[in-house]
Amino acid sequence: MLISKRARAFAADRTRWAGRRQGAIASVPSLASHFVIDVSGTYMQQQISVVTLGVEHITRSRRFYAEGFGWTPVFENEEIIFYQMNGLMLGTWLSASLASDMKRVAIEGSASFALAHNVGSPDEVKAAIGQLLAAGGRVLRDADTPAHGGYRGYVADPDGHAWEIAWNPSWSIDMDGRVIFGH
Amino acid sequence: MLISKRARAFAADRTRWAGRRQGAIASVPSLASHFVIDVSGTYMQQQISVVTLGVEHITRSRRFYAEGFGWTPVFENEEIIFYQMNGLMLGTWLSASLASDMKRVAIEGSASFALAHNVGSPDEVKAAIGQLLAAGGRVLRDADTPAHGGYRGYVADPDGHAWEIAWNPSWSIDMDGRVIFGH
Repeated sequence: MLISKRARAFAADRTRWAGRRQGAIASVPSLASHFVIDVSGTYMQQQISVVTLGVEHITRSRRFYAEGFGWTPVFENEEIIFYQMNGLMLGTWLSASLASDMKRVAIEGSASFALAHNVGSPDEVKAAIGQLLAAGGRVLRDADTPAHGGYRGYVADPDGHAWEIAWNPSWSIDMDGRVIFGH
Repeated sequence: MLISKRARAFAADRTRWAGRRQGAIASVPSLASHFVIDVSGTYMQQQISVVTLGVEHITRSRRFYAEGFGWTPVFENEEIIFYQMNGLMLGTWLSASLASDMKRVAIEGSASFALAHNVGSPDEVKAAIGQLLAAGGRVLRDADTPAHGGYRGYVADPDGHAWEIAWNPSWSIDMDGRVIFGH
């Protein structure tokens, strides 16, 4: 199996991390396809596998994602829809099922969060927000320029989940939709 | 630039989508590095660029992610930390700043959500949960086997954000940490 640039970066991260732990991790094992366990702990990939959003109505949510974003589900039934994203899955799942699965009904603490979808220009930000509003979204913040530059607005999906639609000229997006910091 | 398998899949998605819109999208332009705009709408990559979690205390949150998951920040200051993930960024940002940026303080609607980090075996689920608890996490659900198989538990980070730690034998994770549905 080829060791990719990213995998080498993970290996380098692990080396730095091991160093910071002052020798607690004695050696840097070769990268396995998942991650490596050694005597002192578990090395976990810097990886999010799934983002799952609780939704009240599957069809209302589906319209926002399938018509607003134009995304095609890879799996769907009456209670859950999965979309294959850029190296992870997006799931929209009935809130009651998600709450039952994670054994928590109410959100505790601040628990505020936002998802972002970056695009290639200010005009594309405007166009994307227009499509999302037409598909059941609601404006949280009209698009404008943040202090660090670029251009962005926020739209809530029909269940209140916040999506930032952003043009960030300092972060590239590759053909596979992967976003890399500072490139 | 090489057209990857994923990019071809996006192109195929677009073709299907165009078909479903019954000719509203007249042609399938070649894939640009971001996405393509045509007269009838915007084609957006199936892509999440950033997951941003609101946090009350940067250092408390950092301990959970840097010591619990063992992740190395790619950028950090007093109010935000970014981690380079598998083709997207994870940001932990002071809740007040995030609320100000998206112009919303309180979460509306259900807005329940969970992030998942998949690993390679039930033992790795247990080991990872142990590390997260030692770094300030709190159990929401002890690990067990869901109806669809595999093995998983849920841990809340110090701000209440739910992380599912899961072994899902039907979803592979590649060397770059990318998760593909049903492979």
